[in-house]
Amino acid sequence: MAVAIALSERGRPASAPNPNVGCVIISEGRVVGRGWTQNGGRPHAEAMALAAADDAARGATAYVSLEPCAHASPRGNCCTDALIAAGIARVVVAVQDPDPRTNGAGIARLRAAGLEVIEGVLAADARAAMAPWWSRATRGRAFVTLKLATSLDGCIALADGTSRWITGDRARAHGHLERARHQAILVGRGTLDADAPKLDVRLAGLEQRSPQRLLLTRGAAPEGWTAVASPESLDSLVGVDSVLVEGGAGAASAFLAADRADRLLLYRAPILIGGGRPALGDMGLTDLADAHGRWRRTDSRQLGSDQLDVYERVREG
Amino acid sequence: MAVAIALSERGRPASAPNPNVGCVIISEGRVVGRGWTQNGGRPHAEAMALAAADDAARGATAYVSLEPCAHASPRGNCCTDALIAAGIARVVVAVQDPDPRTNGAGIARLRAAGLEVIEGVLAADARAAMAPWWSRATRGRAFVTLKLATSLDGCIALADGTSRWITGDRARAHGHLERARHQAILVGRGTLDADAPKLDVRLAGLEQRSPQRLLLTRGAAPEGWTAVASPESLDSLVGVDSVLVEGGAGAASAFLAADRADRLLLYRAPILIGGGRPALGDMGLTDLADAHGRWRRTDSRQLGSDQLDVYERVREG
Repeated sequence: MAVAIALSERGRPASAPNPNVGCVIISEGRVVGRGWTQNGGRPHAEAMALAAADDAARGATAYVSLEPCAHASPRGNCCTDALIAAGIARVVVAVQDPDPRTNGAGIARLRAAGLEVIEGVLAADARAAMAPWWSRATRGRAFVTLKLATSLDGCIALADGTSRWITGDRARAHGHLERARHQAILVGRGTLDADAPKLDVRLAGLEQRSPQRLLLTRGAAPEGWTAVASPESLDSLVGVDSVLVEGGAGAASAFLAADRADRLLLYRAPILIGGGRPALGDMGLTDLADAHGRWRRTDSRQLGSDQLDVYERVREG
Repeated sequence: MAVAIALSERGRPASAPNPNVGCVIISEGRVVGRGWTQNGGRPHAEAMALAAADDAARGATAYVSLEPCAHASPRGNCCTDALIAAGIARVVVAVQDPDPRTNGAGIARLRAAGLEVIEGVLAADARAAMAPWWSRATRGRAFVTLKLATSLDGCIALADGTSRWITGDRARAHGHLERARHQAILVGRGTLDADAPKLDVRLAGLEQRSPQRLLLTRGAAPEGWTAVASPESLDSLVGVDSVLVEGGAGAASAFLAADRADRLLLYRAPILIGGGRPALGDMGLTDLADAHGRWRRTDSRQLGSDQLDVYERVREG
């Protein structure tokens, strides 16, 4: 299942509007098929893996990171029927599909056809791997990642605004990889005016992945940009399930104050600035106790001399 | 040698004004004696270990974290002579004693007496373990550790000054352990007036280790406190080789601006404050390039939900 989940990451974000799913088919201890949801959502992961497995699928076990779909679509047959038709004997599912058109119906249909089904294997990991789609499907919201690149004392720039460079090459390259994993990037008006950021993906082979550009503003957005009036108004943006908030302190604080940041990427350089621009502005916090218990560190890695810590929200409200 | 260095930490800071040294004596693969510099500097590590080893020292190997002393003192014989007299066959030394009264003379005398001597084993670790004494002996300065306890966005308090609590119990207990390892603690006037800190060691069994209290001020200090006019004036304070700078932003910035911080302890709670009090004030930095290459992370540990990162200075000036 861990392999199926790793494969599912390959479909992020290109599988939208469909969930990025991964599938591995094992027969007699050997991998006979692998698949992940392709660009635009078709073929599904199971269809890819079944095509690769061909006759070897008969009697095999399929590991799928999301319950196979049970509803036919004009774009293809449903995966439940395809698994049954291919002669799969056992299906291991990480997590049930929250889409009301499936939502247990896929698993029920597999069982009714005599297949063994095991549920709930690495469910949290599978959900995390398709967090944007899951967020949209279960709560009607985009999944928001907030990126901050700071000194050890939490500054994002000198007092005069200079911010080139705080973090080093490897941390910045990692930031570009995160851009490629998102459908949209958002900055505030101050960052747009000061830095005129291109917000493209500057990594070989991933240039085509440059995401949509959003500007947090109550006014109009320049050409090539989409205006977003508030964190909440992201919810009504069609085709934007994942947003990377890149700057500056005003935009970051707005998303945090609205409790609309789901994940934090903190890149930290081993430097001290002193009296520089803070990473965040006022968010209305009046009691330290309210700040505790909201974030949990889920990953930490060294990127050259910089450190990346990833935090996920554990409590809302 | 790693064991000898670990033992040397037990003498910190109580061995002052003598260096905190560790010694292990090995005979036929067995530890026959261990020692570390005792309170006030006597007995020396080698004398303790030799006393424990007794006759087993004959033909044995002694591991010492600092070159054995070659100068007699009114307080005891020199360790070089004691090692020779005990019949030690081989001495492994981490680092040569920079004290001009020894400074290679101990090693030379051991060799002249027919003992085998190996030098330079884990030298950097040994120097780090006796950093305060080393700093005083080689550059006439106290070794300064700067402690900061911040939120993820680098704040040490809410805008109104509230700072109880940012970090949790385990991080605060670790902070008390660091107090016990220092001869003095320093705060600025603002911290004294706002928090009236006791700066004692609140750990069972270590209450007696509460260090001397220093106040960074151009004025007078209240009873029980010693006034320190500037970071540089620490140099002339007799009996203060290790200082923990605990607060607030003004004191921290003063030591950093004067390039008088040797080590950073960054305790970081998984909370965001936003618009709070920054950890540091202006330090005169005008070019980001000047900030790079000064600090290297040497330790990182999780303390409850908080994270401690330790940085050591790699470049001065």
